Amino acid sequence: MELYRKTLAGIGEVDYKAGEAAQLRIDNLTKPLGALGVLEKIGVQLACIQGNPMPTLGKKVVMTMAGDHGVVDEGVSAYPQEVTPQMVMNFLNQGAAINVLSNHAGAKVVVTDVGIVGEPIIHPELNMCKVRPGTRNMAKEAAMTEDEAIEAMEIGIRLVNKEIDEGATLVATGEMGIGNTTPSSAILACFGGGDIAAITGRGTGLDDRGLGIKHQVIKQALHINQPDAGNPLDVLSKVGGLEIAALTGVILGAAARRTPVVLDGFISTAAGLTAYKMNPLVRQYMLASHLSQEPGHRAMLDMMDLQPMLTLDLRLGEGTGAVLAFNLIEAAVKIMHEMATFAEAGVSNRE
Amino acid sequence: MELYRKTLAGIGEVDYKAGEAAQLRIDNLTKPLGALGVLEKIGVQLACIQGNPMPTLGKKVVMTMAGDHGVVDEGVSAYPQEVTPQMVMNFLNQGAAINVLSNHAGAKVVVTDVGIVGEPIIHPELNMCKVRPGTRNMAKEAAMTEDEAIEAMEIGIRLVNKEIDEGATLVATGEMGIGNTTPSSAILACFGGGDIAAITGRGTGLDDRGLGIKHQVIKQALHINQPDAGNPLDVLSKVGGLEIAALTGVILGAAARRTPVVLDGFISTAAGLTAYKMNPLVRQYMLASHLSQEPGHRAMLDMMDLQPMLTLDLRLGEGTGAVLAFNLIEAAVKIMHEMATFAEAGVSNRE
Repeated sequence: MELYRKTLAGIGEVDYKAGEAAQLRIDNLTKPLGALGVLEKIGVQLACIQGNPMPTLGKKVVMTMAGDHGVVDEGVSAYPQEVTPQMVMNFLNQGAAINVLSNHAGAKVVVTDVGIVGEPIIHPELNMCKVRPGTRNMAKEAAMTEDEAIEAMEIGIRLVNKEIDEGATLVATGEMGIGNTTPSSAILACFGGGDIAAITGRGTGLDDRGLGIKHQVIKQALHINQPDAGNPLDVLSKVGGLEIAALTGVILGAAARRTPVVLDGFISTAAGLTAYKMNPLVRQYMLASHLSQEPGHRAMLDMMDLQPMLTLDLRLGEGTGAVLAFNLIEAAVKIMHEMATFAEAGVSNRE
Repeated sequence: MELYRKTLAGIGEVDYKAGEAAQLRIDNLTKPLGALGVLEKIGVQLACIQGNPMPTLGKKVVMTMAGDHGVVDEGVSAYPQEVTPQMVMNFLNQGAAINVLSNHAGAKVVVTDVGIVGEPIIHPELNMCKVRPGTRNMAKEAAMTEDEAIEAMEIGIRLVNKEIDEGATLVATGEMGIGNTTPSSAILACFGGGDIAAITGRGTGLDDRGLGIKHQVIKQALHINQPDAGNPLDVLSKVGGLEIAALTGVILGAAARRTPVVLDGFISTAAGLTAYKMNPLVRQYMLASHLSQEPGHRAMLDMMDLQPMLTLDLRLGEGTGAVLAFNLIEAAVKIMHEMATFAEAGVSNRE
């Protein structure tokens, strides 16, 4: 509780002066004004975050949080719950998409169990931080108590702090949890994202019947729990998830440490939205990586005025889209350091 | 002429059988069916192109073609024509965005003068292949003769063949030429892209007055030259550009050699559209990298059913967006080689 409150309070304004200096430099580079679009905006944002007109990047990490969901009892997922621990073992054995793409990006994967159901997973690379074995079924009661949600957030805060202490300069969010698009749509609905049918998708591949059940289940969860949109912790506890709470903590923790945090897809962005509702200053520390196939994702990003860089129709999670964006963020930083100015290159500026 | 005809005729169907085998493998990897979206499609496309269910990638190259445009006399660009050779010198001195992003991507930049106006640029790294010093003013006469357009295309074919002979497995298109969004919009208009005002943008940053002139100039060029939409060579010669023709050659040449070619932005895609109109089989060898800020770009991509991977609001050209996409294409290939299957990882498939 103490760490959560301290972290929330420790999130400050970014350094807009450093951002202005960065923009000045970018405007003198040999290209038409604004022609590198989002890459220029990323450069300025990193300058603001780091308080350095010439931002630099070092180690990169993806925080992949895993947890289960009581609501799967209602039949809201195309895959059985046992896939959560199986996929976590796959992460630990380097066989999953997040491993391949993180290796490709030169990023470290930190895998954490914050609430998987079943036998404990024994592996030296796993952070075992189980708050409880899965959330409760939100269609019948609150998914978590507030204390459980805070405990999960504090796990995220602590783990991201550890990575930043060890040199991480760029953090991505990732997750694994069978059923977790359901709480993500519920969170979005609470925060005024629109009609449930419009913001709820097929997750890992529900058929029409399953999608109908999912709509109904979300409606019921909101009806039974009556989450208070003005109280993000209430929303998170009642209709969220343990891994979503842990990611909310990662995002708050990164922002408090002035470290850019890259959102992955729908579930990660639900955590981002929750963090943003807890403290809107978080917005300046977040970058959106890709636009998911989940229909509610655009609405979430729009609510925070975040623009995704990649349109790859991904719907995998794990942090896959976020680590793919690392390459673009690094490109933005290199542009600032390595491009010639008009004066250096002897190129005429516009008439 | 001979090389152009031979290359056009040498473009064959891709190997759909290899693509099917690739899809089978992808469907067995530990992720929900289709969850890696465009990355999966890229993997299948490369399998089709290479005739290998497990495609591989080696050297990467960006072919940056430079040429000038007589139509700048009409006042269609925010920058003076002298910027073309100045920026080419910047490319050769490693100071431009394309150099920074190509280094970042591990790609080689091949810079070619196919028609710059002014004093010859002397640099050991420059391919000096000037067909003529800039096109003629298309608002008054045909920009090129058919022979000139073919000569420029054959330069592109020859140069891409040389790179493929030396091991290039992935080719990007790039360009530099003050004024070259004007012929690109004209080409799109010829091929039925829609209303000129809707498909013509501000290029490097025209003001409202300049944009009005640009609309008028394109209308006049189409009126005076009456290009025949059924004859892509006629369109290219009359309202195209030397660098656009050279890139058309690069694309045809890559396709004939069964090598994937990544389109950059609006001008590169005008070359792609011209190549596609010359031989629709080219489509299967092309990948779209990003969606440009130029308003006509989406229409071009839609005409070829190409989906851009990046939405970065770029409008720089040079090949910058295309080389940024290299990282994603390599990611797609690594997914196929390095991810575990359900059976290997002991993960349950869908119920």
